[in-house]
Amino acid sequence: MSLNQVITMLGRRLRLALIGGGPGSFIGAMHRQASRLDDHFQVVSAVLSSDPTRSLAAGRELGLDEERIHTKVADMLKAEAARQDGAEVAAIMTPNDSHFPFAKAALENGLDVICDKPMTNTLAEAEELVRLVEDTGLVFCLTHNYTGYPMVRQARAMVGAGQLGDIRLVQVEYVQGGKAREDDPDPAAGPVPWRFDPAKSGPSLVLGDIGSHAHNLVRFITGLEVTEVAAEVGAVVPKRKVHDFAGALLRMEHGVHGCFWVTQAAAGVENCLRIRVSGTRGSLEWMQEHPQVLHFKPLDAPAEIRTPNGPGTLPLAARSSRIVAGHPEGFPDGFANLYSDAAEVIAARRSGRSADPLARHFPTAADGLRGVRFIDSVLASSDQNGAWTAC
Amino acid sequence: MSLNQVITMLGRRLRLALIGGGPGSFIGAMHRQASRLDDHFQVVSAVLSSDPTRSLAAGRELGLDEERIHTKVADMLKAEAARQDGAEVAAIMTPNDSHFPFAKAALENGLDVICDKPMTNTLAEAEELVRLVEDTGLVFCLTHNYTGYPMVRQARAMVGAGQLGDIRLVQVEYVQGGKAREDDPDPAAGPVPWRFDPAKSGPSLVLGDIGSHAHNLVRFITGLEVTEVAAEVGAVVPKRKVHDFAGALLRMEHGVHGCFWVTQAAAGVENCLRIRVSGTRGSLEWMQEHPQVLHFKPLDAPAEIRTPNGPGTLPLAARSSRIVAGHPEGFPDGFANLYSDAAEVIAARRSGRSADPLARHFPTAADGLRGVRFIDSVLASSDQNGAWTAC
Amino acid sequence: MSLNQVITMLGRRLRLALIGGGPGSFIGAMHRQASRLDDHFQVVSAVLSSDPTRSLAAGRELGLDEERIHTKVADMLKAEAARQDGAEVAAIMTPNDSHFPFAKAALENGLDVICDKPMTNTLAEAEELVRLVEDTGLVFCLTHNYTGYPMVRQARAMVGAGQLGDIRLVQVEYVQGGKAREDDPDPAAGPVPWRFDPAKSGPSLVLGDIGSHAHNLVRFITGLEVTEVAAEVGAVVPKRKVHDFAGALLRMEHGVHGCFWVTQAAAGVENCLRIRVSGTRGSLEWMQEHPQVLHFKPLDAPAEIRTPNGPGTLPLAARSSRIVAGHPEGFPDGFANLYSDAAEVIAARRSGRSADPLARHFPTAADGLRGVRFIDSVLASSDQNGAWTAC
Amino acid sequence: MSLNQVITMLGRRLRLALIGGGPGSFIGAMHRQASRLDDHFQVVSAVLSSDPTRSLAAGRELGLDEERIHTKVADMLKAEAARQDGAEVAAIMTPNDSHFPFAKAALENGLDVICDKPMTNTLAEAEELVRLVEDTGLVFCLTHNYTGYPMVRQARAMVGAGQLGDIRLVQVEYVQGGKAREDDPDPAAGPVPWRFDPAKSGPSLVLGDIGSHAHNLVRFITGLEVTEVAAEVGAVVPKRKVHDFAGALLRMEHGVHGCFWVTQAAAGVENCLRIRVSGTRGSLEWMQEHPQVLHFKPLDAPAEIRTPNGPGTLPLAARSSRIVAGHPEGFPDGFANLYSDAAEVIAARRSGRSADPLARHFPTAADGLRGVRFIDSVLASSDQNGAWTAC
Repeated sequence: MSLNQVITMLGRRLRLALIGGGPGSFIGAMHRQASRLDDHFQVVSAVLSSDPTRSLAAGRELGLDEERIHTKVADMLKAEAARQDGAEVAAIMTPNDSHFPFAKAALENGLDVICDKPMTNTLAEAEELVRLVEDTGLVFCLTHNYTGYPMVRQARAMVGAGQLGDIRLVQVEYVQGGKAREDDPDPAAGPVPWRFDPAKSGPSLVLGDIGSHAHNLVRFITGLEVTEVAAEVGAVVPKRKVHDFAGALLRMEHGVHGCFWVTQAAAGVENCLRIRVSGTRGSLEWMQEHPQVLHFKPLDAPAEIRTPNGPGTLPLAARSSRIVAGHPEGFPDGFANLYSDAAEVIAARRSGRSADPLARHFPTAADGLRGVRFIDSVLASSDQNGAWTAC
Repeated sequence: MSLNQVITMLGRRLRLALIGGGPGSFIGAMHRQASRLDDHFQVVSAVLSSDPTRSLAAGRELGLDEERIHTKVADMLKAEAARQDGAEVAAIMTPNDSHFPFAKAALENGLDVICDKPMTNTLAEAEELVRLVEDTGLVFCLTHNYTGYPMVRQARAMVGAGQLGDIRLVQVEYVQGGKAREDDPDPAAGPVPWRFDPAKSGPSLVLGDIGSHAHNLVRFITGLEVTEVAAEVGAVVPKRKVHDFAGALLRMEHGVHGCFWVTQAAAGVENCLRIRVSGTRGSLEWMQEHPQVLHFKPLDAPAEIRTPNGPGTLPLAARSSRIVAGHPEGFPDGFANLYSDAAEVIAARRSGRSADPLARHFPTAADGLRGVRFIDSVLASSDQNGAWTAC
Repeated sequence: MSLNQVITMLGRRLRLALIGGGPGSFIGAMHRQASRLDDHFQVVSAVLSSDPTRSLAAGRELGLDEERIHTKVADMLKAEAARQDGAEVAAIMTPNDSHFPFAKAALENGLDVICDKPMTNTLAEAEELVRLVEDTGLVFCLTHNYTGYPMVRQARAMVGAGQLGDIRLVQVEYVQGGKAREDDPDPAAGPVPWRFDPAKSGPSLVLGDIGSHAHNLVRFITGLEVTEVAAEVGAVVPKRKVHDFAGALLRMEHGVHGCFWVTQAAAGVENCLRIRVSGTRGSLEWMQEHPQVLHFKPLDAPAEIRTPNGPGTLPLAARSSRIVAGHPEGFPDGFANLYSDAAEVIAARRSGRSADPLARHFPTAADGLRGVRFIDSVLASSDQNGAWTAC
Repeated sequence: MSLNQVITMLGRRLRLALIGGGPGSFIGAMHRQASRLDDHFQVVSAVLSSDPTRSLAAGRELGLDEERIHTKVADMLKAEAARQDGAEVAAIMTPNDSHFPFAKAALENGLDVICDKPMTNTLAEAEELVRLVEDTGLVFCLTHNYTGYPMVRQARAMVGAGQLGDIRLVQVEYVQGGKAREDDPDPAAGPVPWRFDPAKSGPSLVLGDIGSHAHNLVRFITGLEVTEVAAEVGAVVPKRKVHDFAGALLRMEHGVHGCFWVTQAAAGVENCLRIRVSGTRGSLEWMQEHPQVLHFKPLDAPAEIRTPNGPGTLPLAARSSRIVAGHPEGFPDGFANLYSDAAEVIAARRSGRSADPLARHFPTAADGLRGVRFIDSVLASSDQNGAWTAC
């Protein structure tokens, strides 16, 4: 990712239209950060709320021109189509039931599409989208984001390169605790209330939310399809109307057997997406809570800890990492906190307002001075054979 | 970080001038990603190389106007000063010996400064910079980036809130293996050749490179200064001219005692920055290789695993995290890979070139269809009391 | 376990007869070590092989009187019954198909029984044994040894004390790699050849070997029975005749749902028995590969790391641990290596033979001297304000 | 350790006299368990207390003959010397100041000695013991028990075999929290009150208690001596009279540099003895809290997780392990809980008393029946293509 290939190819960033992900949306923030990190996109227009006031405020905060801030997707697509510099790509992060109409409209308007999972709530819609993508030749990217981790891609690449031999067994689990509380089984309020409305979230909350990730991860790493399932789906929280767990035994291509277990009702568990793949030559294990680590257990040699850009990294993984070995993914995020805190203090001073006190924790010149003095003192002490030396 | 406070305050992004971080620089890429992640900055001008051809190519790749791509810092500062929309902030990521003159020049031109560590190579320069920052009232942010991790900030906030009681003991180590190879002790070639030239890297390579981080981390978390050191610095790799290890016993404010150990010659170790702080009420442990985890060991209760936005997260840490609990830092980075791969395939199609095959690993509509079919099959199986059902 | 209650009660150790576990048997060594660790048993007689020569040699090595070393279980039981000081307890560690007849014979001779799992190969035999135990009032202990770990007992005690609230979900897996090699799917030779003969090992190798442990662990910790299963059992290694994997969805008492996955064909995996139990108030996780750690994740508080005799240890766990907090189980085993190495060197000297050179790695008086000198030097250096001091 | 070599050599167990380790002593229990685990010793006599009543009760509990239970070491040595079947080996686990006189007396009486660390409190005593051991030719084993862990021995063997190349750097730390509480800095009461009396515990509590282990571990693994130290020793707990921390920089043979840090005042920390050794070809890391794991980080290959009897295990480690790969040290301890609980229930029934209810948690025949039924049900379900089947 070191070359800004898009700009090199096109001479400019791709123009992106946002559909959803407005105020308070976690996934909306993720989409925007993801679009910015490598600087390949420029957000040019958005539908961030159906409420005009909220939409406008949110759009301004993103630095958008007012005329390109909309409340209806159709309006936005029409307006953008009329511009020379109109949006080229649509990013969809709305409730599940609207993925289909918005993606369809975007594709029909000639936009490439980046869309949240699950792709649609029904099989018929999914099939229609696939046809539409084929017919238009446009790009459709479904944000199964866990497939973006360098070590997940390393796993896929190792399987692809035959380092595991023939695949024999798969175990995947995705265990969360966010829906474990029993006092309000289907909260109508809350950060994502539509999730508890099956008309919007789809036929199975737990399967749409996280089961889809677990299933896709199995396919992504092994390159094999699940061909048959024997399953049990339901809710363990009393009186809950949506599903909060699903288990399945899997039969896969080439005689592979597997196990699938997902739940959002495991109290206290954060976000344990975990996969184990075993082949004739060894096994791989990856867990989302420590995403920079891939365990490889060869048939006849010591177990290995693989990390991004460590020894044995394959090209697909190397391409997917922005860091040097030993610096976990998340390195630029911590770095960004210094930039953003500094930005706030700088902006506050320039605008004559006072900065958020919590922004004033970045190292300053006074800290730099302390650091230089420490180095001097350490060297002075060492020069005097370890004599205690003031800093 | 959910509100784009800078834009709200100023009505626009801060205009950033880059000094250093040109082609092939890891730290340069980090600075730019950090500046983009929260969308508070806009890079407007740069000195990326003293070679005109290289500088121009690198600047164009960042999407800069040609006239704002320079080869000398003084030229850039002068040109930007002459513009209405000139740079407001300078980000310095050059070899250590030039931090001082460039930071000085930037401050004298009225720019806020974001600067790599160590701040300077000499105490006199450090003192002058501190005076200059005080005199100008400008912001100076030193990129001790590990202080930006949410759980490091949680540690600082917990100490500040008295959750550890009085601090008693500190242990810090920063152990790397990047300079363990013995065949070329002071490589003149390599990714950062200036590091092995003491005139540029400063009086002690290991102390400037990583010792400065370890020292600052102690101060950042404990809020206490190191007052005296007894130290040993040197090289264990035969014939090496620069330092590759440093150890020190620490005496700190309030009678705290500590231990400091840094080396870049521990073969096979990646990037083990690790700190332990003990107070009268408990101990904290943090390790950079698993940055999303902070261990808190209370005096009389079970040891705890603290994670970003998990229970007990204090405001300073919450403000520093972009994710919801259980999604490690690095989540947006993985997400960004999908966006960037899609961008490349989109740009390739639009420009009539073929895309890098390694970019074609993002989930497509066909994957989405497979996912919807899987959910349907799981539900059908469950409805039929677990009968095996084709996918 | 600090009081030697058996001796206090009876005035002597219990007299133990061994059935099986002869030369080369791992499980035999485990039984004997387990019987010795707390000094409650004294092995008095044994059937260690059906071959007279081997049986005699093995029995002598255990220090048994020749007249109490047998080749047939019936002979031993008869001979012991005729003695005033005859065996009181039988420990059975033979192939699975003989557990039933030997346990039956032992019980009918008035002996308490300690028996390897699975208890029998058929349901009818199992039911008969239960009746026999009830009729005789004798003790029958089935060595599901994982229930003996302090933190497994802590888990059971926490569930029993309501610390997890109502149980909702269970996940158990037991994954090994010992049968992953494909070149000889059902090795007739090898350390335990009878395992690959269904007549001896029972109807399902993987279920008898490790599935039985996984099932029992679920019951032991939750106190709930599995009431229904939907399962898939088979072999992934081509041409293997016995089972090497089994998966099942579980329905349990009180509406608990669960997932069960066991395999011995996961190449490179050592012995990953792992269980997760979730209730309304929190979740527990335990993994055999780090048996001293129990993770407790409360619904609304930070995740905790529980260790033997750490804060919050319940009486059942405390009683099951021989160590003080922070010293993992296995502490006495490491300690025992010093004793045993010393014993060998001592015995060698006394018998005029030379000791195994590998036994000569225990610290000696010369090491003690070095240690005392080190302490002296450290103190001397500290007394001289940290001056370098020779050791 | 699979052959009972001592019995094979001598035809009997070695006769052991215990000096110290009476009621309530953790280390006493450890010594006895260690002596029993491999069945090479038989405790024949003891001085367990200077109080006759306590000594007698404790000795009886160990099953000793009354005439061989003493209150004075000199008396015991004399009485044992007078017997044909007198003690051959003395195990000393008394306060530090008495190690010297008791070890001296034992050696002078012709007994081999197993002795707790630190060997003595003074250098003169240590030197005299070394001479005495040399003169008598007797065995002296100092119980630096951490050197008995299989993976510590693996580390030593790997260094010895040159797998790390030339050693360059060493870091050792031993961090505990047992003396972190501030309300009673030098508790006169407590499990080991003599520790806070320098006349008994020696010149430095923290160095004698744990610093001696850390120092010995460095020597054991690297095979190199510490030649010079620069150190700081003291107490961070206010008003404490004994030492609770010690730090030192190390110079070792062959130009190796190192760092040493020990404390017992790190609140909440359990028992973190941790060592890192780096050589020209790679680094090793071991931590006592996860003793079954040895991390090996080669210079140019992925980091490895080494475990007892896993691939690459060297003979010294293999000899020191009682288990098969994947079963952590501590396996026999958990196993022993079943035996000991069964013993208690058996003894209770036979003596007509009621057993400790906490002993009634071992699996019984009823559990065995449940297990057999589970296997039957799983197989039946699988035979019916996964139909839900009652257990």
